[in-house]
Amino acid sequence: MADESKFVEDLAEKDDFAQWYLDVVYKAGLADESPVRGCMTIKPYGYALWEHMQRAMDDRIKATGHENAYFPLFIPSSFLAREAEHIEGFAPEVAVVTHAGGEELTEPLIVRPTSETVIGHMYAKWVQSYRDLPLLYNQWCNVVRWEKRTRPFLRTTEFLWQEGHTVHRTEDEAEAETLLILNDVYYDFFVKELAIPGIRGLKSESQKFPGALRTYTVEAMMGDGKALQSATSHNLGQNFARSFDIQFQDADGQVKTAWTTSWGASTRMVGGLIMVHGDSAGLRMPPRVAPIQAIVVPIWRKEAEREAVAALVAEVEAALKAVGVRVKADWREERPGFKYNDWELRGVPIRIEIGPRDAQNGQVVLVPRTSRTAKETVSKDGVARRVPEMLQEVHQALYDQALAFRQSRTYQVQSYEEFQEILADKARLGFIEGWWCGDAQCEAEVKAETQATIRCLPLERPDGSGPCIHCGKTGSAWAVFAKAY
Amino acid sequence: MADESKFVEDLAEKDDFAQWYLDVVYKAGLADESPVRGCMTIKPYGYALWEHMQRAMDDRIKATGHENAYFPLFIPSSFLAREAEHIEGFAPEVAVVTHAGGEELTEPLIVRPTSETVIGHMYAKWVQSYRDLPLLYNQWCNVVRWEKRTRPFLRTTEFLWQEGHTVHRTEDEAEAETLLILNDVYYDFFVKELAIPGIRGLKSESQKFPGALRTYTVEAMMGDGKALQSATSHNLGQNFARSFDIQFQDADGQVKTAWTTSWGASTRMVGGLIMVHGDSAGLRMPPRVAPIQAIVVPIWRKEAEREAVAALVAEVEAALKAVGVRVKADWREERPGFKYNDWELRGVPIRIEIGPRDAQNGQVVLVPRTSRTAKETVSKDGVARRVPEMLQEVHQALYDQALAFRQSRTYQVQSYEEFQEILADKARLGFIEGWWCGDAQCEAEVKAETQATIRCLPLERPDGSGPCIHCGKTGSAWAVFAKAY
Repeated sequence: MADESKFVEDLAEKDDFAQWYLDVVYKAGLADESPVRGCMTIKPYGYALWEHMQRAMDDRIKATGHENAYFPLFIPSSFLAREAEHIEGFAPEVAVVTHAGGEELTEPLIVRPTSETVIGHMYAKWVQSYRDLPLLYNQWCNVVRWEKRTRPFLRTTEFLWQEGHTVHRTEDEAEAETLLILNDVYYDFFVKELAIPGIRGLKSESQKFPGALRTYTVEAMMGDGKALQSATSHNLGQNFARSFDIQFQDADGQVKTAWTTSWGASTRMVGGLIMVHGDSAGLRMPPRVAPIQAIVVPIWRKEAEREAVAALVAEVEAALKAVGVRVKADWREERPGFKYNDWELRGVPIRIEIGPRDAQNGQVVLVPRTSRTAKETVSKDGVARRVPEMLQEVHQALYDQALAFRQSRTYQVQSYEEFQEILADKARLGFIEGWWCGDAQCEAEVKAETQATIRCLPLERPDGSGPCIHCGKTGSAWAVFAKAY
Repeated sequence: MADESKFVEDLAEKDDFAQWYLDVVYKAGLADESPVRGCMTIKPYGYALWEHMQRAMDDRIKATGHENAYFPLFIPSSFLAREAEHIEGFAPEVAVVTHAGGEELTEPLIVRPTSETVIGHMYAKWVQSYRDLPLLYNQWCNVVRWEKRTRPFLRTTEFLWQEGHTVHRTEDEAEAETLLILNDVYYDFFVKELAIPGIRGLKSESQKFPGALRTYTVEAMMGDGKALQSATSHNLGQNFARSFDIQFQDADGQVKTAWTTSWGASTRMVGGLIMVHGDSAGLRMPPRVAPIQAIVVPIWRKEAEREAVAALVAEVEAALKAVGVRVKADWREERPGFKYNDWELRGVPIRIEIGPRDAQNGQVVLVPRTSRTAKETVSKDGVARRVPEMLQEVHQALYDQALAFRQSRTYQVQSYEEFQEILADKARLGFIEGWWCGDAQCEAEVKAETQATIRCLPLERPDGSGPCIHCGKTGSAWAVFAKAY
């Protein structure tokens, strides 16, 4: 089915990827601007997508032993200051409530940019004994970070996310949790629900979460060759536990400081999904999270034809709903061609065309979003079997195309000149893998010279060591460099 | 099964209902305090309850043709002022962001207390033609109202809710929508999911939503005889449409002002559920939304017994999960009596006791939360059939008890003296039904003299008119008076 070249081949070179992205977001009805700078309004089609993503992610969070809870939107400003790196990282971008109930507050309140501090405060109260551990909680909520440059879904002042916060008895348990989330929740979700091949790895010191010991990430390649940090899982060590006095009496009677983790994934993933799968016709929704999985377009000219078509449309809708397919029929008074374009723009995985001859023959035409030329005529009795199968094929085609594109844009260079050339060439832009000396200064110079950052030190990597991609000194860190959103 | 008298008989007179409520909330692990005044932390057991409530409510919202969307947390402060009654109602209790991103904002931002204004602004953009109508959207989100006196779930500075916002072509359509939500979403939800018999009615002018034309409400009687406004549905008339320029070109070519509605239900319903159903042993969870529907308590003394018991426990758990029952086994190292009390406090609808003799005989003992004396011995093969049935019986028993209690505490009085006596007597406190002259001044005097307010003008009412309960003038409004949360 993957017989059409990916849109980026013709879009990226035209320098309009950013505009294409905005066009898709707004024209497909995913989101709109809002009267508050940097905030977005998520429209029903975009929110339905988010709901399906949430459900699939939440299932994984619960299946791995976590429970949901809810913590306050506001954080006393003094809390943020308790962890030194944390306040340095977040202070510049917080929104502050100074007045409430008609009075000035004695202590200003921060609108949560993330909740490690307020949750740490509660955990200190809830954790007393090793018997209380591990504590495995997650919350779905909104957070606010005052960003200078915003873009719908990708970087907004307010966004929706889940943030998991866990407490453990030992360092090993905390590390195991951090990796469990990376692998069994995030990576698995990207592959199986969003059809996005992610790269799992460790963040460099300069890129880790403010206050964390180690940050793991799933990075994905977008349709223009840039990287998107799609979800992160942090081993917080004992930093927050120390700042918030999360201590427990261990089995040996000793009072010990706990180990904590946190991990989050947000509406940013919607932006990633658009930029990984979209093509020149618009969105391509991964079938498992698509708000509408199959769109029926009835075709008729005379009123007499309409009746026969309507009967078959109703039959097909009922048959598909019965097997759990999210199907909708488009009875708008518009030409079929208009509807085809509209639903392609909105990325519906399968189009079902039903015309007068189809009604007569008891058949329908299926067109997968991943290939305009792969039309299939299916008898009406076969629809409920074939459509779910084809949804799985569309999922696989999207994944295969995204992986092939990433592979075609991933390089191992012979020189720093080649490194710079690739990063300066829109037609080749992508991920560059190579050795890194491990020096933050060297990393900073690469960024200053090329805008590329170390996206991660991948978990799957070659053994050994080699000359640093930038300075040439021998390094044992294997890194993925890229420009990033 | 409803063979035990309701707890209020022994609790209400002891003047400790308020303390009982807090004890249940905190000891059952539903919520905890937070470091921010008036905000609460919803703990996993309380949040799981909320998730089940959300799912059941959301299903009804979608089944009646609505879609979910998401609008910004922040509202420009000028927006609030556009509707005169609205700002008067909400200005005193808003939280205000004055600084963000390290700078003072040119226009302060309100943290949404409700979203009519910001949604009205977006709707003005989205609604152009009568073909765009009706617009039927809902959002699940957090809102903030700076309350002076707070109580977990019942009245908190931040709370979670759904707020529906719709736009219509005509006044009739808006009124039909307002009533559809009242009946098919809220009332139906209270009866079928929460086992709460609500009273549907219209709010008086003094009690309606600031800016609304008409507010409909579902009022429920709590275990102490007070009322809780549990959900409201507002016909906003053209007030917000005028303030935010929501206009459309009608089929006749004329540009017309639209009609809007809004409707909301919040985490406050959790407080209502506790106060309607709880008894002296603690919570009683309505089975359909209970996080745990059946708790298995294994009983053993010797290690040899434990093995046989464990095998049957596993079998029962698997059989119940297979039929969709939310079951959990309590293997803590505690005495059975401790566990019985703990799960009664948490309100689990059915306890399943499994001891060595039960293991030998292939049977279990079922105890519904609604009656300690109604133990039933059931063969292990009958568990998967009997438990779902008993859950339905517990639901019905809770509903019947709540209805019987409300009926026993609902009065039609002969004089204003009797009215005052009932409202001053904890043992009799309840709802008083009667004629009202319709005069706001008269209503205000009743409130000043008795603390009772008009909870609603019920939709189910006698015809005709009669002497006002307070002033004696003939009135045709039939009202329910009560003290309220």
